[in-house]
Amino acid sequence: MSSASPPRSEDHFVQRYLLPLTNGDPAALELKDDAALIAPRDNHQLVVTCDTLIQGRHFLFDGSPSSAADAAHKALAVNVSDLIAKGAAPRAYLMSLALPPGDYDIWMPAFTQTLAECQKAWGITLVGGDTVVSSDHLVITITAIADVPAGKMVTRQKAAPGEGVYLSGELGDATLGLHLCLEKSETNSWARILEEEQLRSFMARYRRPEPRVRLAEVLRQYASAAIDVSDGFVRDLTRLCTTSGIAADIDAHMVPISNAARMLVNANEVSLGRLFTGGDDYEIIACVPSYLQNEFEIAAEKVGESITRIGTLREGRGVQIKGSGEQPMEFESSGWDHLEQTGK
Amino acid sequence: MSSASPPRSEDHFVQRYLLPLTNGDPAALELKDDAALIAPRDNHQLVVTCDTLIQGRHFLFDGSPSSAADAAHKALAVNVSDLIAKGAAPRAYLMSLALPPGDYDIWMPAFTQTLAECQKAWGITLVGGDTVVSSDHLVITITAIADVPAGKMVTRQKAAPGEGVYLSGELGDATLGLHLCLEKSETNSWARILEEEQLRSFMARYRRPEPRVRLAEVLRQYASAAIDVSDGFVRDLTRLCTTSGIAADIDAHMVPISNAARMLVNANEVSLGRLFTGGDDYEIIACVPSYLQNEFEIAAEKVGESITRIGTLREGRGVQIKGSGEQPMEFESSGWDHLEQTGK
Repeated sequence: MSSASPPRSEDHFVQRYLLPLTNGDPAALELKDDAALIAPRDNHQLVVTCDTLIQGRHFLFDGSPSSAADAAHKALAVNVSDLIAKGAAPRAYLMSLALPPGDYDIWMPAFTQTLAECQKAWGITLVGGDTVVSSDHLVITITAIADVPAGKMVTRQKAAPGEGVYLSGELGDATLGLHLCLEKSETNSWARILEEEQLRSFMARYRRPEPRVRLAEVLRQYASAAIDVSDGFVRDLTRLCTTSGIAADIDAHMVPISNAARMLVNANEVSLGRLFTGGDDYEIIACVPSYLQNEFEIAAEKVGESITRIGTLREGRGVQIKGSGEQPMEFESSGWDHLEQTGK
Repeated sequence: MSSASPPRSEDHFVQRYLLPLTNGDPAALELKDDAALIAPRDNHQLVVTCDTLIQGRHFLFDGSPSSAADAAHKALAVNVSDLIAKGAAPRAYLMSLALPPGDYDIWMPAFTQTLAECQKAWGITLVGGDTVVSSDHLVITITAIADVPAGKMVTRQKAAPGEGVYLSGELGDATLGLHLCLEKSETNSWARILEEEQLRSFMARYRRPEPRVRLAEVLRQYASAAIDVSDGFVRDLTRLCTTSGIAADIDAHMVPISNAARMLVNANEVSLGRLFTGGDDYEIIACVPSYLQNEFEIAAEKVGESITRIGTLREGRGVQIKGSGEQPMEFESSGWDHLEQTGK
């Protein structure tokens, strides 16, 4: 006979760590039912996306509270970023945690504290999930759900010739941050060129990407197509172009990069190509018809998000990036492929 | 510049293996958008559930096509079983695959072929997901979505005193099958008592659980509360009772077990308790008010599902299982806890 769960059971874990993240959302059913119950708002549909992040591959985790906080932030951010690119307002998520053996009480408080902060900032609430023990690594799968007015989801499929290609924020700091986090030897020389604070800001960009949540509604109003940059700018733009059956001409000089990244490029420490293919940026690429570009730019500015026109779409296939010469730039790889069998 | 994905890229993998599983469902957006777009039918809500299964912990996988087929079957079955227990009709799922390094072309065809068969049998379609490479193990996370008439989801929360406790099918074969699959030495003596075919049927129960899909609508019509048995009958019934704030008296002799399992119990090879706590049954526990029990039994028979009344609910707390003596049975463990840090 059993009438109570052991103190360190899954049920206890859910009550202690996860229930507070539901904020009483009725969709979560108090996490008592192993399912969430949800309906879109009137005349809306639900956008559902799902991303798995694996320790050592998508985030760095050493069992410390600070690395757990970074993992939590990133796992939720990459899913929210997917929803934003659809022009959809984040609402709820299910989280499946595969915990590595060991004392998760050391790091779970930081993990859930960070989730709580991100939830508040990005307008999303935990409504369900699953918890298991993995053989070794921390694996986080988040299924994120957003409301979007019926028929108004922004896809990757409807970009058209003549439209402008826009990019939010700046490219490349995150991939530089990853190399610093991994303490790669090539980064030693960066410290002679940049301030400590600039190096730290690279690492923060990798560890704590900020999804462009304020752009969701702006994209829905003005973008014909959009995608978020997770696997590298060139690869993700290529995906959008392939899906829309279109070509893009990008002016490399127009692509915004940070002052710190520019200093490394000018010192020949890193190539522009590396910034364009590194991934983990979680910026938004948006395609906007000419007659809406002025309004789009004003609307983005109004919500406080920086966007830059970096190129134009035309009939054809592929992505051409023009640098200083006549020839388009060539890249060894267009970005990060999730089935490449090496660590990033 | 890059205008096409490399042949073994994630995009190629999605096109080759996953796109056929969408059956043209518009919610999948041809898997081109990294998101699904879904709305419940009119006057319905969506039930969303999420389960992660890890190689070696929730299924056995050795890189062979047959073990991949078993993994696919089980991963979808456990999620569908969750939905059935809610009285909800399965509809769509997102699947996140973390693939172990190695040649997945050997086993992915069997994996997707089995998913296609299960989809057809259970009325559910792939609409999205994610694919990454794991460091070592195959990890499958499925987020399954069902339609349920608004306000009609069956929960674990509304069981009431006096109601009958019902169980679908039979308990225990799956846990015996797991021990056979693991070739535990204790199972050697079972071959002296049972036919080869009976042993194989235990293993099939573990490897290929059959969710009781035809019970979904019956539960919605007649059950006040329900739960599926994944972590062991005693544990899951205790969960339901705790959530409803109620006690259950179960008559051990009424709990259906297979003839083969009965032979092992009679030969003192396994205890009843082990069958009641072993898990992986994916049967349904349902609580039904007295005045509806007759109709419930007829409705279940009509859809071809076996159900058995095994006990009664009363005021109080906990689960009492009465065997042949006066005292309730005692179990070492009520079942399988996902945070216990040992393999199953």
